[in-house]
Amino acid sequence: MIGQTAKTLAEDMRAGRRDPLDLVVEVFDRIAAHDDGALFIRQTRERAEAEARAARERLRAGNPASLLDGVPLAWKDLFDLKGTVTTAGSEVLRGAATAGQDADLVRAGMRAGLVTVGTVNMTEFAYSGIGLNPHHGTPRNPRDKAVHRSPGGSSSGSGAVVAAGIVPLSIGTDTGGSIRIPAAFNGVVGYKTSTGHHPMGGVFPLSRTLDTLGPLAHTVEDCVLVDAALRGLAQPEVAAVGPARLDFVIPDAVMFDDLDAPVATAFEATLARIAATGARVRRIALPQLRETVEVIARLGPLASAEALDVHWDRLNGPDEARMDPRVVRRIRMADRMTAVDLIRLHDHRRRLIAEVDAVLGDALLICPTTPSVAMPVAPLEADVEVFFHHNFRTLRHTALGNFLDWCGLAIPNGADGDGMPTSLMVCGRHGRDAALLAAGLALERVIRG
Amino acid sequence: MIGQTAKTLAEDMRAGRRDPLDLVVEVFDRIAAHDDGALFIRQTRERAEAEARAARERLRAGNPASLLDGVPLAWKDLFDLKGTVTTAGSEVLRGAATAGQDADLVRAGMRAGLVTVGTVNMTEFAYSGIGLNPHHGTPRNPRDKAVHRSPGGSSSGSGAVVAAGIVPLSIGTDTGGSIRIPAAFNGVVGYKTSTGHHPMGGVFPLSRTLDTLGPLAHTVEDCVLVDAALRGLAQPEVAAVGPARLDFVIPDAVMFDDLDAPVATAFEATLARIAATGARVRRIALPQLRETVEVIARLGPLASAEALDVHWDRLNGPDEARMDPRVVRRIRMADRMTAVDLIRLHDHRRRLIAEVDAVLGDALLICPTTPSVAMPVAPLEADVEVFFHHNFRTLRHTALGNFLDWCGLAIPNGADGDGMPTSLMVCGRHGRDAALLAAGLALERVIRG
Repeated sequence: MIGQTAKTLAEDMRAGRRDPLDLVVEVFDRIAAHDDGALFIRQTRERAEAEARAARERLRAGNPASLLDGVPLAWKDLFDLKGTVTTAGSEVLRGAATAGQDADLVRAGMRAGLVTVGTVNMTEFAYSGIGLNPHHGTPRNPRDKAVHRSPGGSSSGSGAVVAAGIVPLSIGTDTGGSIRIPAAFNGVVGYKTSTGHHPMGGVFPLSRTLDTLGPLAHTVEDCVLVDAALRGLAQPEVAAVGPARLDFVIPDAVMFDDLDAPVATAFEATLARIAATGARVRRIALPQLRETVEVIARLGPLASAEALDVHWDRLNGPDEARMDPRVVRRIRMADRMTAVDLIRLHDHRRRLIAEVDAVLGDALLICPTTPSVAMPVAPLEADVEVFFHHNFRTLRHTALGNFLDWCGLAIPNGADGDGMPTSLMVCGRHGRDAALLAAGLALERVIRG
Repeated sequence: MIGQTAKTLAEDMRAGRRDPLDLVVEVFDRIAAHDDGALFIRQTRERAEAEARAARERLRAGNPASLLDGVPLAWKDLFDLKGTVTTAGSEVLRGAATAGQDADLVRAGMRAGLVTVGTVNMTEFAYSGIGLNPHHGTPRNPRDKAVHRSPGGSSSGSGAVVAAGIVPLSIGTDTGGSIRIPAAFNGVVGYKTSTGHHPMGGVFPLSRTLDTLGPLAHTVEDCVLVDAALRGLAQPEVAAVGPARLDFVIPDAVMFDDLDAPVATAFEATLARIAATGARVRRIALPQLRETVEVIARLGPLASAEALDVHWDRLNGPDEARMDPRVVRRIRMADRMTAVDLIRLHDHRRRLIAEVDAVLGDALLICPTTPSVAMPVAPLEADVEVFFHHNFRTLRHTALGNFLDWCGLAIPNGADGDGMPTSLMVCGRHGRDAALLAAGLALERVIRG
């Protein structure tokens, strides 16, 4: 099943060509073959088998729970699974209480017939874009068999399990790029929904204001299908639009500074393909992007402030020494943030969102998802300053979308000379999810030619 | 016209027994007779005369703009009046730009035919409950001709101009008690509306979260009438309810600690009168009140944090030395408030509001508005620690209402041996303004016997 889409698997199961329980066996065989200990945090084989049996019954009765009934998926280790401990990729939560119930979205997944095979590795407490994890090890990026490269983060395992073909779907979270970056680095599609698009109940928080969630998958179409299934829809509301109806903008600031050459080349190639379809593409001035960077540099990161609230007791007690010092350092960026800083940060954010929304209108913004492809892990682990340099740079484009309250899609759009994937990011203002996905369906076809 | 209500004056004008322009002349004669320089900040005689003339035309044509057409009123020095400088009781704003337009509520007042005679003194930047003002002097409390007593604050002039009979109505603001305390100290009625009940556009801010506004008047009925007029209603929506339908609760915590004897005595006398009507009165446990006090003591005052944002440049520049050091000190209580403190303060506030709302339901809470009557000004001016002791104590009951997002009414309910007024506070949860005013109408009758 390597690389098979959720759609294909689901169609095969509905047609009786595949059995959900066989698929679960296959998935766990692949986990056993691939997982070096850094990929899965918890495997829920019993649960998966029970859910697969229930799916089999429904499918045999011709009464599937959704268009993805029986499809296996993995969750980021932030989602509560009833009866297990949500550890958020950390050591310090190992002794925490087991979840009394599934996270809201996990319940929605069960209603849609999705089969939960476990939770996967991530940056501790979801706070970096690179995916290093000193407790479980850093998942390998399946796109490079030779060199241990970054799988992206924080949903590191979510990108890797899909790219490795272990499961066709994984649900991650995205506070600064944590879905889109692993999608980009692993060459899969990642969809960061608008805030509030899905319920966040039972998801371990990083930043209450910025946290969002969404799927990683092989195709935009799979993202459309799983999003619809999780929302209880019998059919997706989204269909591809003709290129002539697409309206893209390319910002002049920040997102094209200092790109690695293969990323720039891939973007220009994609752009040429888009232009050839007759879609509208405009380069626009968007000085608010640079201003956003400056505001955050001056006042502090909103996610750090909200994470410092969440982790206050841990950072003021013995747990701190057991946490990844890189994560501690990022949270502690809020140590000197004052109440006035926070008031002003929220004010600037509200203003900048309104200004940028007015410029964007119904157009979608396109840019490279990240300024580089996935980088080797060794230098990042060897030197914390090298790590911070790359982490900051890797989050540069995606984090703007969280601050400005956008939805966004990362779509593979090429590769460098070593075969490492590049990625196109498409962003819309808050709530424009349907238009974003519709454009994504069209773009995917344009890119694949 | 001393002591005449807005209702009586308006009825007399509608009946042709009084002329709006004569009334304006009377008002300015009384200002000239009473104002020692500490009462009015700006007198807008030309505007008042023009508005009175327009009212006269409407009244003669039998087409009044509202039930209060032609009634004069004064605004707290926070409300923009087109073409004048809003100085917020401060020296440092004297050179500021003139307002390009009236505040939203001033415009609403014009539409209702109210006649603006000027703006009145206040605690600088609205940040204390006592009313001291070193720039303009502290308004005298008209209830004591011999001793200079506190007029309450921060809407010090607003209470004094009504109590002195200069105008029947004044509009103040209330962030911690700034309408209800001057009402209590001057023996008039003060109505703090729910947040959002009236527009705040063009009102100089203290605390964006807690700021509210409302009238000071001789009677609850006048508050009902002016509130309706300012909302553009032809008739008030509120009428007194029979005592049997009233449901009051008396909290066990904070609001009955350490009351001055005359205040306690007046409250018990009012309680006996209420009980005699057959109204329901229950003593309830409300530990959230003590917890609110503790949360604010631990994390810091929300108003200080939001005021520090507003006044940042002033407190970090030469203006600081020109401000009342007592006001500077209160704002600087946020100097050490961190972003996490603010996040937690808002979280506690949301939780406490929900908990207290659930306990209160549709009942109204009653307690003394302040733990003491108006105190002499001299000791407060002589010793800043004496000032802070009294300021904190004076705000104790009312500020709980702002933090817990209540609406509230202060109604005179007696006097001490020197004739200084005591006051009953009635509070309802957010949005229960109509029920609060209806109960206030009934209580006023009960108290007056």
